[in-house]
Amino acid sequence: MEPEVAVEPYQASGRKMHDLAGRLFPICRSITGDGVRETLKILSEEIPLQVIEVPSGTKVFDWDVPREWNITDAFISNAAGERVIDFRQSNLHVLNYSIPVKRRVSLDELRKHLYFLEDYPDWIPYRTSYYKEDWGFCVTYNQYKQLTEPFYDVYIGSTLEAGSLTYGEYYIRGQVGDEVLISAHVCHPSLANDNLSGLAVVSSLARTLSERNNYYSYRFVFVPGTIGAITWLAQNEERARKVRFGLVASLLGDKGAFTYKRSRRGNTEIDQIAEYILKGRDSRNKIIDFFPYGYDERQYCSPGFNLAVGCLSRTPFGQYVEYHTSADNLDLISAESLEESYNVYLDILSTLDQNRVYLNTNPNCEPQLGKRGLYSLKGGNNDAKAFQMALLWTLNLTSGENSLLDIAKRSQTDFQIIREAASRLEECGLLKLADA
Amino acid sequence: MEPEVAVEPYQASGRKMHDLAGRLFPICRSITGDGVRETLKILSEEIPLQVIEVPSGTKVFDWDVPREWNITDAFISNAAGERVIDFRQSNLHVLNYSIPVKRRVSLDELRKHLYFLEDYPDWIPYRTSYYKEDWGFCVTYNQYKQLTEPFYDVYIGSTLEAGSLTYGEYYIRGQVGDEVLISAHVCHPSLANDNLSGLAVVSSLARTLSERNNYYSYRFVFVPGTIGAITWLAQNEERARKVRFGLVASLLGDKGAFTYKRSRRGNTEIDQIAEYILKGRDSRNKIIDFFPYGYDERQYCSPGFNLAVGCLSRTPFGQYVEYHTSADNLDLISAESLEESYNVYLDILSTLDQNRVYLNTNPNCEPQLGKRGLYSLKGGNNDAKAFQMALLWTLNLTSGENSLLDIAKRSQTDFQIIREAASRLEECGLLKLADA
Amino acid sequence: MEPEVAVEPYQASGRKMHDLAGRLFPICRSITGDGVRETLKILSEEIPLQVIEVPSGTKVFDWDVPREWNITDAFISNAAGERVIDFRQSNLHVLNYSIPVKRRVSLDELRKHLYFLEDYPDWIPYRTSYYKEDWGFCVTYNQYKQLTEPFYDVYIGSTLEAGSLTYGEYYIRGQVGDEVLISAHVCHPSLANDNLSGLAVVSSLARTLSERNNYYSYRFVFVPGTIGAITWLAQNEERARKVRFGLVASLLGDKGAFTYKRSRRGNTEIDQIAEYILKGRDSRNKIIDFFPYGYDERQYCSPGFNLAVGCLSRTPFGQYVEYHTSADNLDLISAESLEESYNVYLDILSTLDQNRVYLNTNPNCEPQLGKRGLYSLKGGNNDAKAFQMALLWTLNLTSGENSLLDIAKRSQTDFQIIREAASRLEECGLLKLADA
Repeated sequence: MEPEVAVEPYQASGRKMHDLAGRLFPICRSITGDGVRETLKILSEEIPLQVIEVPSGTKVFDWDVPREWNITDAFISNAAGERVIDFRQSNLHVLNYSIPVKRRVSLDELRKHLYFLEDYPDWIPYRTSYYKEDWGFCVTYNQYKQLTEPFYDVYIGSTLEAGSLTYGEYYIRGQVGDEVLISAHVCHPSLANDNLSGLAVVSSLARTLSERNNYYSYRFVFVPGTIGAITWLAQNEERARKVRFGLVASLLGDKGAFTYKRSRRGNTEIDQIAEYILKGRDSRNKIIDFFPYGYDERQYCSPGFNLAVGCLSRTPFGQYVEYHTSADNLDLISAESLEESYNVYLDILSTLDQNRVYLNTNPNCEPQLGKRGLYSLKGGNNDAKAFQMALLWTLNLTSGENSLLDIAKRSQTDFQIIREAASRLEECGLLKLADA
Repeated sequence: MEPEVAVEPYQASGRKMHDLAGRLFPICRSITGDGVRETLKILSEEIPLQVIEVPSGTKVFDWDVPREWNITDAFISNAAGERVIDFRQSNLHVLNYSIPVKRRVSLDELRKHLYFLEDYPDWIPYRTSYYKEDWGFCVTYNQYKQLTEPFYDVYIGSTLEAGSLTYGEYYIRGQVGDEVLISAHVCHPSLANDNLSGLAVVSSLARTLSERNNYYSYRFVFVPGTIGAITWLAQNEERARKVRFGLVASLLGDKGAFTYKRSRRGNTEIDQIAEYILKGRDSRNKIIDFFPYGYDERQYCSPGFNLAVGCLSRTPFGQYVEYHTSADNLDLISAESLEESYNVYLDILSTLDQNRVYLNTNPNCEPQLGKRGLYSLKGGNNDAKAFQMALLWTLNLTSGENSLLDIAKRSQTDFQIIREAASRLEECGLLKLADA
Repeated sequence: MEPEVAVEPYQASGRKMHDLAGRLFPICRSITGDGVRETLKILSEEIPLQVIEVPSGTKVFDWDVPREWNITDAFISNAAGERVIDFRQSNLHVLNYSIPVKRRVSLDELRKHLYFLEDYPDWIPYRTSYYKEDWGFCVTYNQYKQLTEPFYDVYIGSTLEAGSLTYGEYYIRGQVGDEVLISAHVCHPSLANDNLSGLAVVSSLARTLSERNNYYSYRFVFVPGTIGAITWLAQNEERARKVRFGLVASLLGDKGAFTYKRSRRGNTEIDQIAEYILKGRDSRNKIIDFFPYGYDERQYCSPGFNLAVGCLSRTPFGQYVEYHTSADNLDLISAESLEESYNVYLDILSTLDQNRVYLNTNPNCEPQLGKRGLYSLKGGNNDAKAFQMALLWTLNLTSGENSLLDIAKRSQTDFQIIREAASRLEECGLLKLADA
């Protein structure tokens, strides 16, 4: 017999997350195509992703899965045949989902197809045209100003053909079938915070949870924004309706404080826990109400699903100047921020997982703590008795309507102390799980 | 064949309202009698009022319709036979509902029947004694001081006889039978703000609504205060119980900010809309809770009816010094104030009429706005997108529990923008009326 | 026939309460034993207490009634045979529930059994060891410092034997069987505020209520803290579950403002009334939320009972420096404070007793107050009309969902004025009791 090999437990680190983002950065992603496939393949080295292909034309609620887009090259060249704008320099240069083009155009016509940011003359903006056939180039303002020749050759070597939309999914079975959904969008090209930071944090989180004994089951989905989430919901409608809680993960590498956007329902357990953890960590963290814009919480919280899914980011979308520009690069995100984001997610999910409802088995009057070694000492002892108070609160409030978080909040006691009190009382037989 | 005569649509104006108040001002009204009849006849020139006579002695809940009071003349004359107090100068001079009197009295006795305001020596107070048989004169303090002769002749040429109580009613049928009640009291003699302003605003409002295609049906009642409202409720008990919303209109011609007094139920749709409109117009406008005193909301909000009826005035009763005195005259009310009051009422009623509940016909995920021409342009466009946000909010919240006002409030978007968004979505088949 | 002797009604006074506390002060009480019996015997001179003995070993929920503790003498004597610590000087000197001891101990060993307060060198602390067998002495810090000899003789003349736990109960039958429970702990030795003040106030209160015609039935229990309340609840389980309201009385003789600790349910009628009365009397009075520590509200509010029982004290336990020391003596409590506490309790209980729900028998529109002599006079009278407003509020809100307190609060009118209005309206037949 061979000796067993000791498996080192996975140790998440911000450095690993940043490295992963670095590997993914150069890939030209879109809502379909090989960029998504390559991305999911790299993530599969971390976690055993199931990769699903949904054919173009598939009806997904009010939408159709679009034709698949791929691109190999693109440029604008001048009369001298020099590439003055070159896709090989940055995949942001091409309007994402551009139709193929190869022709000579006047400067006037070209300008109708150019996007730039006058306020940030060295940055390339990120633009898309998924559902309206168009072509275009995104350039820096400085590049734009140098386009002065009367004619240019434009070339976009893209294809828009029947193919499929690709997404990845990873499921960890827990003690119960009730699912927690973690969703990240996988469709943005070379943008680091939006959303390689999300992919890096979520894949580390998935790997950590895969090695734990979880109460809930966890499902991680890596989907193209909007159409990908809609496709997942359409293809998994019955299962999706049973998602008990969820978080949409994005923008997790910058230095800003956290913002949690509540689910449409607004006060579900995940909403309460996210608020409890974030406010407990840093008063600058913000909790905001749901609004029907942003990331894929728009779909998860559409009225037909109305799931208990919030969105947890650092600085929210559109609120930092580098958002959707070439300045959202690997320098914008840091290993420290990624690791802190990972810890916050883990803290929230761990609290959720432990937030059970217990029943006091001896509800008539207090039980005699002393005979079970749970009562400190003599009466009149005015020292700090935080743990004894935690025991008393837990006994008093375990009448079926309060979770451990409810008890922690009502008693203004840290959740982990209440959790510990509940464990001690359960060991003594004074508590039992309400759903056991 | 005669050519059709183009009918000019009615155009409300503060000037017309003030003129109407001016015509009504000289009439001596009370809770019964010819003054009310004459008033309703003049209002009938504006709107086709139905005039109802309820005989004296008719049992109306805990009350009986009183004997009818009429008066032709009244005076106090001195030893020289000169009228020192003369009803022909002001109908306020007579204690309203005074019994007939003709005799010589000593100054001492006379003084027991005199009412005056020491603080406002030129103003005549307005006093009534509907249910206790009495006679009296209301005089200025300056007049009072000049009554120094030992004896005076008093004459009140009134009658108190079996007759009837008179009220007016006007009904505009809407798409549904659910009724909105607008009530104004019609019993005060020569007092302009209280309540000729109410009669003027309400009759203009009725005329405007009569030319519209309304969702709700509207019922306008012009009733003597207290006993008139009680009589209307008693005579129309079953119909009254079905009144869905209502407003009591009074004190609408002065320059003060508006005060909306909530219905007894406190948070009905009319309460919410009145607050929304008033606070949206001017932060000085006030919203106050129901209390069982004031105008006929006392009756509509008695516990047996408990209707969703509020009271909307400018300066509330008793809170301006001219209240219930001869200084509440045509100079106290202005065309501008009347017109603004009219506009506020119309705004509230229009909002109420349009405040429907819609259902999203495509509730699973967002619909594809682009293919219906509802999506502006490319992603990443950070320009103002108020209308697109209104579309998204409306789609997200039309799950059956929210009216358009609820959506406007939750999204902090103007009601009319949400209304417009709902119309566009309804045209595309993405929304339908919940009660259709 | 003998002439009837006129019985003077009982007149409570702070002086009598202080005198009673003075009689009870010297007795050495504990959770069992003759001290409690002697205390209840003295209270029986005021009110006809039923005294109940529950044998040691009786199972009371999770607990067992302990062995009975009695003590006759105790001391520490020095080599010269002098009593340096003497139970006869203060019964606080002995650790309450000490096992019997008679032996010579080294100073080192003795010190392990000594309790003192370094910060208050002349005060003796109060300590107990009910459930862990131990012995000890409580001494002043000055005494402690003088214990310098190498050996001392210790003697504790106590017994711990099968016997019983003793409590007292007094029941006053009211118009209905629904019970109000007043509970005071009777187990502390020579401590005046905690809780001879409670015994004095509660026994005066009981005597006063015994001479009234009450709506509710009242039950007064004088029980040893914790184990006594648990015993009472266990022995009277079915009756206890029906307790409709209750108050735990303690710490009622000091000069502090009142603190009402809400029941676990938090917003029951007794909670509302206590808050209404206390806040109406003095804004310094405090209302705090329930927490599972303190006096016997811990047991009454355990989740299995969850009774509407609050705790009303002056300065709360542990928040005054004399708490559980020899400085909590008869000088700490005053006749004025006791009498004021009595008045507050009586006010709360009287309000509770009168806080009925009435129904308007004429709910459609206002009734005609004038024909019943309830309407003051003419219209336009702007004088204070508090009582008329009270009548109108009471008529308007007696639709079945409001108690008189609810009406008082909503109308911002004193409860007694609303009470008076309801009486007048009931006399006229305009109101009837909802449960009649």
